[in-house]
Amino acid sequence: MSGNGYTLPRKLRELVPYAPLSGSYRIRLDANESFLSPPPELMEELMAAVMAVDFNRYPDPYAVELCEKCAAFFGVDSSMVVAGNGSDELIGLIVSWFTEPGDTMAVVSPDFSMYSFYAQPCGLRLLTVEKDPGTLVLDVDALISRAREADARLLIFSNPCNPTSLAATRADILKIVDGLPGCLVVVDEAYMDFAEGSILRMAGEHDNLIVLKTCSKAFGMAAIRLGFAVARPGLILALKAAKSPYNVNSMTQAVGCVLFSHPDYLAGCADEIRASRDTLCRELSALAGEKAEILDMRPTCANFVFLRLTDAKGVYEALLARGIAVRLMGDRLRVSAGAPIENRALLSTLREILR
Amino acid sequence: MSGNGYTLPRKLRELVPYAPLSGSYRIRLDANESFLSPPPELMEELMAAVMAVDFNRYPDPYAVELCEKCAAFFGVDSSMVVAGNGSDELIGLIVSWFTEPGDTMAVVSPDFSMYSFYAQPCGLRLLTVEKDPGTLVLDVDALISRAREADARLLIFSNPCNPTSLAATRADILKIVDGLPGCLVVVDEAYMDFAEGSILRMAGEHDNLIVLKTCSKAFGMAAIRLGFAVARPGLILALKAAKSPYNVNSMTQAVGCVLFSHPDYLAGCADEIRASRDTLCRELSALAGEKAEILDMRPTCANFVFLRLTDAKGVYEALLARGIAVRLMGDRLRVSAGAPIENRALLSTLREILR
Repeated sequence: MSGNGYTLPRKLRELVPYAPLSGSYRIRLDANESFLSPPPELMEELMAAVMAVDFNRYPDPYAVELCEKCAAFFGVDSSMVVAGNGSDELIGLIVSWFTEPGDTMAVVSPDFSMYSFYAQPCGLRLLTVEKDPGTLVLDVDALISRAREADARLLIFSNPCNPTSLAATRADILKIVDGLPGCLVVVDEAYMDFAEGSILRMAGEHDNLIVLKTCSKAFGMAAIRLGFAVARPGLILALKAAKSPYNVNSMTQAVGCVLFSHPDYLAGCADEIRASRDTLCRELSALAGEKAEILDMRPTCANFVFLRLTDAKGVYEALLARGIAVRLMGDRLRVSAGAPIENRALLSTLREILR
Repeated sequence: MSGNGYTLPRKLRELVPYAPLSGSYRIRLDANESFLSPPPELMEELMAAVMAVDFNRYPDPYAVELCEKCAAFFGVDSSMVVAGNGSDELIGLIVSWFTEPGDTMAVVSPDFSMYSFYAQPCGLRLLTVEKDPGTLVLDVDALISRAREADARLLIFSNPCNPTSLAATRADILKIVDGLPGCLVVVDEAYMDFAEGSILRMAGEHDNLIVLKTCSKAFGMAAIRLGFAVARPGLILALKAAKSPYNVNSMTQAVGCVLFSHPDYLAGCADEIRASRDTLCRELSALAGEKAEILDMRPTCANFVFLRLTDAKGVYEALLARGIAVRLMGDRLRVSAGAPIENRALLSTLREILR
């Protein structure tokens, strides 16, 4: 080995990576994916669009056509939209560009763990505002006052929340945005297609607000990595300047354009997933009535349920051993709503395990 | 407007974005793209691979099959490879994770401007080592001593160099790597398929070396955004931990797998582009003998030429007005080697403009 003087920087040595489940399982209910695949007619249209890509050319840097179609779908002006390589890329961009080293970034907990992941390389102070451990509800006034005290420059959270499955009201979200005028507030609405209370269309009216959307959940397109930030044009211009020039590949742009040309299909997907979620939730509630091992489960606003169990880890492993993957999070399991047949398999297997 | 207290952070207000050319031009020789499109048989195979994607599922986080195929193609172990959303993403990751705020990052000039772009959000000091303004040659000893003096933690440069089109020798590159043991040295070999002197296969033998590769140049796949970092497994593990979990979308992974299953096709593409480049270079040299407005042009090691002109801006604009896009860089033009018919159009148009 040459150059033995080189050691990794401390933040890399201390880095705790995000660890998605790997391995092959019969039923995947661990990543809040959609259980719906594009029907054959749509698939044909998607493939024709991909086929038409000029593979030797760089993608459109600003994904103009895609952003126009997506803006029309969302009901906002296209100057209010920027596309990313999944919302993930946009979160990373926002965290690194809208802060300076030493700034405070606020998150809530439990919430999507990637928000604080992206803070790691930036030399930020992290303010974590805990939710009530029993109800898992966000105390909006506490959040505002803690973030003010800490002079937070950035606050990111999901609504509906992943993993709690609960949603804050539109009024509460706007109270946060207005209550922290010096702080950029990023509301990740990845799961809002399954709930009520979106503030997407009001994004342009607030100086300090960015709303994130994704194609990975209700639209069933996790494979293509496509997310959007929606905000007033001044913030969008800044994000466009800060992003990698060719961040969204041409195939994804082409597929996205087709997708947003089918608003009825997209709305239908969300409806179908909500129906599956409602059935799953109802049947799990019934099971919770029978089985003392299920300690807590409340109505969900997302495409998954969040269960507290006496032995979450044991149940998680027993499910995995039977080919069913869910997500283990401390003393809880997060279970995505699957196809009806998958939900039934989950329920009967759970019933067996908890016997 | 609500929340008027919010102002953009200074680094965003001061940000100078990368500005790729937009607009529609008959002949595009501005982005060093390949002029070759996949032939029909390959296209069919690519489309079948895309068609087989599970669109509702997240991509393989570690792009295992893709990295295995690409490692076999490069002749390295797959533990030495990580895939990115273009090399761009990998550059951004390296710059933000392998430095701490206040660290010095070294670049050379002229070189690919995105290296220093990615330093902007990280609070880094930038050390820019200028090449000889006449020869555009890198002074390796000066670079080593300047980087040592500044205690640089990271050095990034391209070899062959974009935009000078010149390559440093393998011996010179290894001298740099060995001469800066406490510094991570990133060698961007985006254009190495057109030259000699790759150190890719030696990446595993050096503690402090990362080599970058791309599918956007010789392989003619700029649209899919696929780049690779090749290094010893310890550095690759760190990059895998630091990257976004689902950074390379499933369609790109599928297309990349097909691509690397056709090593002869890829080698043939590089040959054909080199031949075009040689013709372009020869004919431009002949033109330079006739026209005093062309001040300088030397043999190129890449898929483009770099010309100094008495009036580069005037010539650039005259070419654009005639539907031919090249890249203007100060008093020089960077011109990608195109298809034979594009090269001929460029030459005859130049001859006309310089008349």
